[in-house]
Amino acid sequence: MGQHVHSTAIVHPLAKVANDVKIGPFSIIHENVVIPSGCEIGAYCEIGIKTTLGDGTPLVFGENTTIRSHSVFYESSSFGAGLVTGHRVTVRENTKAGRNLQIGTLGDIQGDCVIGDFVRFHSNVHIGKMSVIGNFVWIFPYVVLTNDPHPPSNVLKGVTVGNYAVIATMSVILPGVKIGEGALIAAHSSLKSDAEPNMLYMGSPAEKVCSTNKIRLQDGTRRPAYPWTTHFSRGYPEDVVSMWGNEHGE
Amino acid sequence: MGQHVHSTAIVHPLAKVANDVKIGPFSIIHENVVIPSGCEIGAYCEIGIKTTLGDGTPLVFGENTTIRSHSVFYESSSFGAGLVTGHRVTVRENTKAGRNLQIGTLGDIQGDCVIGDFVRFHSNVHIGKMSVIGNFVWIFPYVVLTNDPHPPSNVLKGVTVGNYAVIATMSVILPGVKIGEGALIAAHSSLKSDAEPNMLYMGSPAEKVCSTNKIRLQDGTRRPAYPWTTHFSRGYPEDVVSMWGNEHGE
Amino acid sequence: MGQHVHSTAIVHPLAKVANDVKIGPFSIIHENVVIPSGCEIGAYCEIGIKTTLGDGTPLVFGENTTIRSHSVFYESSSFGAGLVTGHRVTVRENTKAGRNLQIGTLGDIQGDCVIGDFVRFHSNVHIGKMSVIGNFVWIFPYVVLTNDPHPPSNVLKGVTVGNYAVIATMSVILPGVKIGEGALIAAHSSLKSDAEPNMLYMGSPAEKVCSTNKIRLQDGTRRPAYPWTTHFSRGYPEDVVSMWGNEHGE
Repeated sequence: MGQHVHSTAIVHPLAKVANDVKIGPFSIIHENVVIPSGCEIGAYCEIGIKTTLGDGTPLVFGENTTIRSHSVFYESSSFGAGLVTGHRVTVRENTKAGRNLQIGTLGDIQGDCVIGDFVRFHSNVHIGKMSVIGNFVWIFPYVVLTNDPHPPSNVLKGVTVGNYAVIATMSVILPGVKIGEGALIAAHSSLKSDAEPNMLYMGSPAEKVCSTNKIRLQDGTRRPAYPWTTHFSRGYPEDVVSMWGNEHGE
Repeated sequence: MGQHVHSTAIVHPLAKVANDVKIGPFSIIHENVVIPSGCEIGAYCEIGIKTTLGDGTPLVFGENTTIRSHSVFYESSSFGAGLVTGHRVTVRENTKAGRNLQIGTLGDIQGDCVIGDFVRFHSNVHIGKMSVIGNFVWIFPYVVLTNDPHPPSNVLKGVTVGNYAVIATMSVILPGVKIGEGALIAAHSSLKSDAEPNMLYMGSPAEKVCSTNKIRLQDGTRRPAYPWTTHFSRGYPEDVVSMWGNEHGE
Repeated sequence: MGQHVHSTAIVHPLAKVANDVKIGPFSIIHENVVIPSGCEIGAYCEIGIKTTLGDGTPLVFGENTTIRSHSVFYESSSFGAGLVTGHRVTVRENTKAGRNLQIGTLGDIQGDCVIGDFVRFHSNVHIGKMSVIGNFVWIFPYVVLTNDPHPPSNVLKGVTVGNYAVIATMSVILPGVKIGEGALIAAHSSLKSDAEPNMLYMGSPAEKVCSTNKIRLQDGTRRPAYPWTTHFSRGYPEDVVSMWGNEHGE
């Protein structure tokens, strides 16, 4: 056991934990996990819970992962490098995520889903089973991606979210809906049919309003606010930002 | 103390805990609780918190209860056999629930409420005080049952939900509203007046749309999706399902 | 260390903790905190998490604070006397709050915000950065105060909430919106522009409906329900209530 494991933590002897991994007080690391170099697990986390709903494969974190306190991960999920979570995150089995995913406090990832690279979930999002999420997607607080067209049933139709799409606060995406690349779903919307790329949808039920490039930055410049990659770059690696040709970003 | 109590758990010597009960690491069992045979309490749970808002009776679980990690229960509530919770559930005093209740992750049951048999709460539901919920009810993520008609006040009018009713994701049920047996409240609705049995309500404010039996299953058969008991039986005991005459269920 | 600190709690030797403070099992008190007399910290709390986003000042509680289990506070926030929280509350850095704040279970205070005296957050509210909240404000479950007018961006426009205002369940307040003193935002609303004092707003998008004094108490008297200070006084000190001239309050 590495010197960074707190004395009160409970780490299964067969868990694959790199020597430099920090594990906080009172955390539990189960047997079927892989935690590589540079990772940090906060206090009161339970990592690698066994389940019959997984495929038996381990929970695999990438390097330099940060899991904040009171979080829970099941086995049979995998993440690229640089996962960062808030507090009290739940991630169920069969979640396959790319690199540098961020999951805010209270996020509830139901499993059986695919998540791309550089995705950002703000606090308290709910990602239903069978969701397929592209790269550079942003999902804001209290958004729910649903999956059952006539609940309760055995028919699960996941939501698909294209690259660079943005779903604003407290919107519900109905089962099977596909959101096109760069689309913006305004706050408190209820999206019942597919959203075209780079278009703004708003309302309950949500309707198409205009192209996202009509929205102006409220920073005094009145440049277009979308694509957001033209002005926002916080937290992305330099090679990614330079690919965007971001001249104005933070 | 049974052999299944983790060495780090703190169990009050006067708590009534059956010999075969499993209690996870770092959990706390207070004095005024009854945990019978076949129960399992996860890690970081606090069970039986004392409160002046209860009637002094113990927290009583039924047999074969499963409480997942980081959950909190107060004293003076009772549950039938087979309660299953997700993670981080909160259940306040004076909750009286029947058998085989399921409460998803982050569920917040405010107490002073009555819940029937075989009720299903998905993740992150909020059940206000004075709610009365029938049997076989389904409540989906981020639904709130409210109770104060002019907040803040001392007037509490709970919501009543009939047997087999379904409330879909992120709907708000306004104070004192009665939902009839088998009614369906669509996602992201705001229900301000009573819902008739077996009818679909949708919108904000919600309006009556049609009979639920007009909704077709999206499984290729186009059979009616409601009553849902004709095609969905996962998790219910055989004697219940056979009572429904369910020929097509999972 | 005081005699009320549970033997399993981890308290940094440099933390300023008064002798009579109660600290529950498995809680963690970091170095940069001030916890004065009369305070009580529940189980599984992590208090005073270090962050580079704060100004280096300590987390300072007032006297007679009660923090319930599984809660998390960062350094560089301060609170007046009598803070009470539910379970699993998160409070980030640079939160400045007055006396007798209540934060319900699952509340998520994002930091960089100002909160007045006697404010009440019910369960599961989300207070975005840059929010400015007056005195005697009520915010009900699943309300979100947002701040980014075109997410994601570096432009943060916080919500301002006037004294005695009430935001009912599951409403979203859009960035930069100002809510006037005594205004009422009905449940499940989406408020996109400023709300005048003592007026009711409802809907998505919310529209002005009428003066709040048109709303009648449903307690048999049909007296006006607003200002709510005429009939509701639970939990406020006597000198405050007498200031209101509350003749009918509980």
